[in-house]
Amino acid sequence: MTTRDDAVALDSADPLNRFRDEFFVGEPDLLYFDGNSLGRLPLRTQTALADAVTDRWGTQLIRQWDDGVSLPVTVGDRLGQLLLGAAPGETALSDSTSVNFYKLAAAALAARPGRSKVITDDQNFPTDHYIVEGLAQDLGRSVTMLNVDPVDGVTLADLKPHLDDDVALVTFSHVAYKSAAIADMAAITSAAHEVGALVLWDLSHTVGSVPVDLRAAGVDLAVGCTYKYLNAGPGSPAFVYVRKELHTELRQPIWGWYGQRDMFAMAQVHDPIPGIERFTVGTPPILSVIAVEHGLALIEEAGFSALRTKSIELTEFLIRLCDERLAPYGFSVASPRDSATRGSHVALRHPDAGMFNERLRSEMDVLGDFREPDNLRLGLAPLYTGFTDVFDVVTRIERLATSGEGTLRPAL
Amino acid sequence: MTTRDDAVALDSADPLNRFRDEFFVGEPDLLYFDGNSLGRLPLRTQTALADAVTDRWGTQLIRQWDDGVSLPVTVGDRLGQLLLGAAPGETALSDSTSVNFYKLAAAALAARPGRSKVITDDQNFPTDHYIVEGLAQDLGRSVTMLNVDPVDGVTLADLKPHLDDDVALVTFSHVAYKSAAIADMAAITSAAHEVGALVLWDLSHTVGSVPVDLRAAGVDLAVGCTYKYLNAGPGSPAFVYVRKELHTELRQPIWGWYGQRDMFAMAQVHDPIPGIERFTVGTPPILSVIAVEHGLALIEEAGFSALRTKSIELTEFLIRLCDERLAPYGFSVASPRDSATRGSHVALRHPDAGMFNERLRSEMDVLGDFREPDNLRLGLAPLYTGFTDVFDVVTRIERLATSGEGTLRPAL
Repeated sequence: MTTRDDAVALDSADPLNRFRDEFFVGEPDLLYFDGNSLGRLPLRTQTALADAVTDRWGTQLIRQWDDGVSLPVTVGDRLGQLLLGAAPGETALSDSTSVNFYKLAAAALAARPGRSKVITDDQNFPTDHYIVEGLAQDLGRSVTMLNVDPVDGVTLADLKPHLDDDVALVTFSHVAYKSAAIADMAAITSAAHEVGALVLWDLSHTVGSVPVDLRAAGVDLAVGCTYKYLNAGPGSPAFVYVRKELHTELRQPIWGWYGQRDMFAMAQVHDPIPGIERFTVGTPPILSVIAVEHGLALIEEAGFSALRTKSIELTEFLIRLCDERLAPYGFSVASPRDSATRGSHVALRHPDAGMFNERLRSEMDVLGDFREPDNLRLGLAPLYTGFTDVFDVVTRIERLATSGEGTLRPAL
Repeated sequence: MTTRDDAVALDSADPLNRFRDEFFVGEPDLLYFDGNSLGRLPLRTQTALADAVTDRWGTQLIRQWDDGVSLPVTVGDRLGQLLLGAAPGETALSDSTSVNFYKLAAAALAARPGRSKVITDDQNFPTDHYIVEGLAQDLGRSVTMLNVDPVDGVTLADLKPHLDDDVALVTFSHVAYKSAAIADMAAITSAAHEVGALVLWDLSHTVGSVPVDLRAAGVDLAVGCTYKYLNAGPGSPAFVYVRKELHTELRQPIWGWYGQRDMFAMAQVHDPIPGIERFTVGTPPILSVIAVEHGLALIEEAGFSALRTKSIELTEFLIRLCDERLAPYGFSVASPRDSATRGSHVALRHPDAGMFNERLRSEMDVLGDFREPDNLRLGLAPLYTGFTDVFDVVTRIERLATSGEGTLRPAL
């Protein structure tokens, strides 16, 4: 059996352990396993935001726009090149993930006017479902919802039978929000391209946790958020990625003035910049853009490949402990067991997962997530989650499972 | 001639003068006349943002969403009721003004499928032009761009000849971004309704500066920003107003999960809340939502009608000083002279307005705005602009005009 000393030893040997000190800790006893929903606050960001409020807004006032206008593009570009395998000028911060998803999905459908189908899967995030449903209804297209394995997520085999020259757009989450299954981006993108469809990836659970190479995979379009593994704070802006060869071919439907050439000339006629800027819309939340900048710097300092290595070790450690100590109480692992196809969170399945999550939160100082119907989802953020944290969270779950209080019914 | 002592006396008698102390001042010698682009930083907001970063994000972490999810609606609702004459449940914070404008314009066009025309005017803000242009192109509609007087803005007389049963949507800025002309909201809305069109007002230069009564005027739809007179900081979220009778009739095109009933149930099928929530989309920038809350509190404490009274006095004072001391140098007033039809900024026309603005900024510690082709635009924010500031800005403009340096050519 794995012991707490084992966990302590892993933390001691962890070259990234010192990055824990880079984060604000409000409640020392809290075990935070929801960094895949809202990442922790970096201390440098706490300072940078206070400085930005005072200096940029308070003192610079309107002059802050001198560089502020281009900041969403320069920071987005850094994000794309550092974490996504994007070429320069292919990524920008803009709007929310949902709005970006709408813009790019609409642009893709407009570029494939004679095709009727949008393909997605039932493990994709709900907002993506709703948005393609709305677009399909508006544009007389239809949505094909693949029923995929809830643990393994969407595969090329799921997609293949549905690919034909009537498919306009294929869109999936790269890392599934429930199970953390990683889809085969390159194979799926390539297969969709073979029938002439465009591909849009939702990278919300990917960015900053699982390396991707969008250019190598030939990805057309991608969106994602910055408040999870990029630690940019509640409601920080999302990003858009558009392969540069498509910048002038595609036409997104929301022609805001942030995409306009020489925007302060205030010309009446729309004349979009022939770059990623044309996929942005309106005035972005500058304070949060600065938070993204500092979140990226932290990842760069730690090294993205070192983070992925530690993320895999953390999820493997959690899975091992679940097998050893939680399986007897009816828990099973609802994430892929092959770390090559697993992102940075682990779903534990239990019939009382909702109740466990509630009691972990209210009684045990553990913040995780419940996801319908039976998943206790634990996010492991390699910048600040330690192996001892993982050991302790399993101990607290075990304590609840053996307590027999309330409506929990230990399976054994 | 008006003297500086007159200005000092006006400040002494001003019941709102004490609110100047509510704002952060980074450079005491700076004369800030661009609060209509980006409002100053309230000291309470500086504190509240630091607290929100530390407590809400840093300590509460994911628990901040317990009330955070509804904050954009509760704060938006307060904004609508305090400043717009909205009924409860008709206003929400969401997205940028541009994205909101798109959503509501698209919803209006979808609700008037048999009609081909969108009417706007050439003094409306560029992003509104671009967005209706894009929508019209997508949906096979046409945009009628009224050529209106650049000082007096759009009038019922401009609109009347174009109203017929082929008009789907009429959309104007309530306060013109260049001249500050106030459009006759009630008369225009009523005339558009007579032919069965819907009406969408852009209230960006209105909200917090000019009182409106959306319900009394029968307004269908409105959008606006919060970083001008609401002092919520760079890129703070915009708002949407939809008359409650239209909530379930209208269908906005971006079906994000923030409009979903029981959003954390993560249902696959879109089932929007039958209220203003269905006009929101994705995760809002919570820190900026908190800034809006504090900006509103300041306006409520000062009293909105007292603010409007002072705003009129400030703009009248500036116009009087322009007539007395700047007219000899070729300046003329390019805003309405009737304060009943003038918002809270004043445009001064001069052939060298661009150069004046540059030199005011670089040499004279004055921040105003240049707006093409020949407007020096000065915003007067009654919460923190004083009569002495107005006197001093005129003195600095006069000093530049008489200096004869550079390329400035005094008209006399």
